[in-house]
Amino acid sequence: MSAPASLDVTGIGNAIVDIIAQTDDAFLTAHAIAKGGMTLIDAAAATRLYGIMGPGVETSGGSAANTIAGIAALGGRAGFIGKVQQDQLGEVFAHDLRALGVQYDTPASISESPTGRCLILVTPDAQRSMSTFLGAGQELRPEDVDPARIAAAQITYLEGYLWDPPGAKQAFRKAMDIAHQAGRRVAMSLSDAFCVERYRDEFQHLAAGNIDILFANETEIMSLYQARTFDDALQAVRGKCALAALTRSEKGCVILAGGEVHVIEAVKPVALIDTTGAGDLFAAGFLFGLTHGRDVAACARIGALAASEVLAHLGPRPQSDMKALLKKSGL
Amino acid sequence: MSAPASLDVTGIGNAIVDIIAQTDDAFLTAHAIAKGGMTLIDAAAATRLYGIMGPGVETSGGSAANTIAGIAALGGRAGFIGKVQQDQLGEVFAHDLRALGVQYDTPASISESPTGRCLILVTPDAQRSMSTFLGAGQELRPEDVDPARIAAAQITYLEGYLWDPPGAKQAFRKAMDIAHQAGRRVAMSLSDAFCVERYRDEFQHLAAGNIDILFANETEIMSLYQARTFDDALQAVRGKCALAALTRSEKGCVILAGGEVHVIEAVKPVALIDTTGAGDLFAAGFLFGLTHGRDVAACARIGALAASEVLAHLGPRPQSDMKALLKKSGL
Repeated sequence: MSAPASLDVTGIGNAIVDIIAQTDDAFLTAHAIAKGGMTLIDAAAATRLYGIMGPGVETSGGSAANTIAGIAALGGRAGFIGKVQQDQLGEVFAHDLRALGVQYDTPASISESPTGRCLILVTPDAQRSMSTFLGAGQELRPEDVDPARIAAAQITYLEGYLWDPPGAKQAFRKAMDIAHQAGRRVAMSLSDAFCVERYRDEFQHLAAGNIDILFANETEIMSLYQARTFDDALQAVRGKCALAALTRSEKGCVILAGGEVHVIEAVKPVALIDTTGAGDLFAAGFLFGLTHGRDVAACARIGALAASEVLAHLGPRPQSDMKALLKKSGL
Repeated sequence: MSAPASLDVTGIGNAIVDIIAQTDDAFLTAHAIAKGGMTLIDAAAATRLYGIMGPGVETSGGSAANTIAGIAALGGRAGFIGKVQQDQLGEVFAHDLRALGVQYDTPASISESPTGRCLILVTPDAQRSMSTFLGAGQELRPEDVDPARIAAAQITYLEGYLWDPPGAKQAFRKAMDIAHQAGRRVAMSLSDAFCVERYRDEFQHLAAGNIDILFANETEIMSLYQARTFDDALQAVRGKCALAALTRSEKGCVILAGGEVHVIEAVKPVALIDTTGAGDLFAAGFLFGLTHGRDVAACARIGALAASEVLAHLGPRPQSDMKALLKKSGL
């Protein structure tokens, strides 16, 4: 039906540079930052928060972009679509993807808005609390979605975080249509409980129709179906989506694939430093497996392994040789 | 003689953001990058190298700036003088110093030159090889040296790296004069063997006259006196400079203080990841001790401890609670 895919996965999401600083719980409380969550802030609030937060480490971030970077690091063929400004942080973002061999050539924004940044505060328990100024990232438009790049990929991966500005929503809808018309699959992450709160009906609709592979963590899936327990959410999603990967941090994950259910353990990281990007890298490992002919249980194990790598250091992108790690783990 | 100092140390140096990527020895060889050294490159070469190097992590750097950040992290009162551009990397550099409580308000450059950056390639043996585009950093001028900030500090610390552009040299000379007229001390690092090669006569002259506290590693001090062995260099510097701290990586350091000689062990890091900034942090610990009334042997031990912290992670600035580390070590 469809031509052989020249890419494994094309991701669409916010193009973000992370600024990561270590802090304590008192700082989060004093500045009303929701621990473990993601809050959108405007330029003024970003300047204010940056002014009071500690010294930082900068790394390219963005949820879907982290996933795409992870897939490339594992040896997959990947592309990305997302919007930066022509500024220094934009250059860093583009460099870090291209240096991994990711196909990335979305035209930079010509508006005044700078490249998006995410101010991440990491507490001693390794939990990350994110305050994001989306900047140019939210200017994604349908015309930025290159039909060839979508049709060329086995899977198009979308982050729920970008399901907000009308132009980006249209871009997502366009990408879903192109992918399905080309006989490809669409994957999406619910991203954060606040996204689910805001777009519950739309996300329920997407999960039951347009999305072939759904990624959600425990909080997100419970919020999506307003379930009281994880098992209630599990029963609610079962049968609605062809393939759902539900992650539960150190409790591992549950995979629903048609009639099959798999319960897979987490991989303990060598150190627990920073949870930023753990979910993104789970998705990377899972999608890498899926596009390389692995069964869903093996996909989940690769996801858990990839997540464990980024838990062990500051920042959401792998710092180890992921191909070697995969080999060593017998996966 | 002099008024009580409101600052422990004021540093003057290049204002640089580090872009750190892991690589292998083959890459260094293929691109003729001198392993373990620091090479100055122009904007075009920086763009070229950045284009081919792997994904990176960005952190504020600059040799003297790292030392100043380390002193502040240890609980010292510190100031910095150095030149950035009004761009995103300049903002990151200023933020990271100010977030540590460092007094830093050198006016940003108004030239076209962007904020300086150092492309650092770290090999699996933890050695760092640096290619630096100085950018706005080298535009330091005598008028940037605030006399009050120099006179207020017990010690003014200079990095040899900046002993190159005529304006910056004049700025260094001005700072030395102000410090000495105020009854303060001047410290300087020889920074790198290539600096010593280039300015051997001037550095010998400085070491024998204008500098009260000299920092050099084994290679640098041997180059300064064109000595065949470390001991030859030791004999050459002895008696020329009031206080000299000669570092030898894992072999520890030798301190010459008037007639005294101390041989102090290195502190083994919990992991050996990246040597970037190890010398800078040795100087930070040493100067922190010196400005807090410690004897020179204790100063060297604090220096070795501070160096061990930055060896254990990517990047030249502390990521642990340095005050707690100091306390735990009984120093």
